[in-house]
Amino acid sequence: MKLYGYWRSLAAFRVRIALNLKGQPFDVISTDLIKGDQFDPEYLKLNPQGVVPTLITDDGVALNQSMAILEYLDEVYPEPSLLPADPLARARVRALCMIAVADIHPLVVPRIRKYITQDMGHSEDELNAWIGNWTKKGLEAIEAHLSAHAGTYSEGDAISLGDLCVIPQVGAAALFKVPLDPYPTAKRIFDTCMENPAFFDARPQAQPDFPEDMK
Amino acid sequence: MKLYGYWRSLAAFRVRIALNLKGQPFDVISTDLIKGDQFDPEYLKLNPQGVVPTLITDDGVALNQSMAILEYLDEVYPEPSLLPADPLARARVRALCMIAVADIHPLVVPRIRKYITQDMGHSEDELNAWIGNWTKKGLEAIEAHLSAHAGTYSEGDAISLGDLCVIPQVGAAALFKVPLDPYPTAKRIFDTCMENPAFFDARPQAQPDFPEDMK
Repeated sequence: MKLYGYWRSLAAFRVRIALNLKGQPFDVISTDLIKGDQFDPEYLKLNPQGVVPTLITDDGVALNQSMAILEYLDEVYPEPSLLPADPLARARVRALCMIAVADIHPLVVPRIRKYITQDMGHSEDELNAWIGNWTKKGLEAIEAHLSAHAGTYSEGDAISLGDLCVIPQVGAAALFKVPLDPYPTAKRIFDTCMENPAFFDARPQAQPDFPEDMK
Repeated sequence: MKLYGYWRSLAAFRVRIALNLKGQPFDVISTDLIKGDQFDPEYLKLNPQGVVPTLITDDGVALNQSMAILEYLDEVYPEPSLLPADPLARARVRALCMIAVADIHPLVVPRIRKYITQDMGHSEDELNAWIGNWTKKGLEAIEAHLSAHAGTYSEGDAISLGDLCVIPQVGAAALFKVPLDPYPTAKRIFDTCMENPAFFDARPQAQPDFPEDMK
């Protein structure tokens, strides 16, 4: 398979973890969101929204939207399963995913940053206040969920889609200089997951397009 | 079942459609997002994030996050199925859902409006420009998806979760005074769905807490 992504895209990070866990090799095609590679006409044929990730299946089909891709990979490559069997537990996992995928991440993506600084005329400091506010609010919601339902991982003692969505968000908090002390369960699960090569190798810092000057 | 929702919540709208399609009766508990009912300590026990909807199952379990609730209802009440059988088609449906659920809706919810006006000091006109911008961008993405994959409904000729997520968003565009002419496929499917009582009865205007002075 081929994955159009970018080192710092949290959505691409989720998909990289899933592909690693499923043991599916993939080629990364770096799509530089700062340079605007996502608006290249050839890329827009694969992803009309102009966002990453896009997964190209072995049959050449382009799949969009990380959460849809995660569910697809779990259906087509069922081992190891990334959703519990019990419908209530599956609902809990997906609810946790949605806190990250819908309620935090879309607020801090490049198109939003650009609108806030360029269209609304805000400073970098004001943009960072926006990012910090929603990152903290999201981590509070994640921690509340985890403190009720987590075991070794975010839902009991098996890795689930919940971890694939939470871990990139926790990693991003560090990047945004949001202290993790108020979120001890999230921090513990992050540390546990980072001992697993499927997560460790998927992190932004391990990507071939991670900038030299940030190493 | 019991559904904590609010007449104008697009996320609650999605769940109402699903319950109607599945033939599952439910009691609505109006949660006034303007008055702040979602932050009532009793409600926060059911939904620590302080958002709607929350679905209380017949066994008294509280489920959060509309997309997780939709998937749960489709698993537990399989008829009529709201996801196609083919994994690629399922991925398309879920990708369409995510455009609405993750990429448009979270940008226009009450907590964001409040931050933009109160914390960032923007006028109502500037807030409306924000809402209009993301609503249009989202509808463009939805229309691009639909023009490639829609039949009678958003994925072929059967109602799917894609319709449950798109229809409330199209209805909201009218509320936000965004003209629908540039999105003819979305408009056509909206009109088709509104002929179905499961959708029609779930619309904001049909809810018991819809304000008298807006009728």
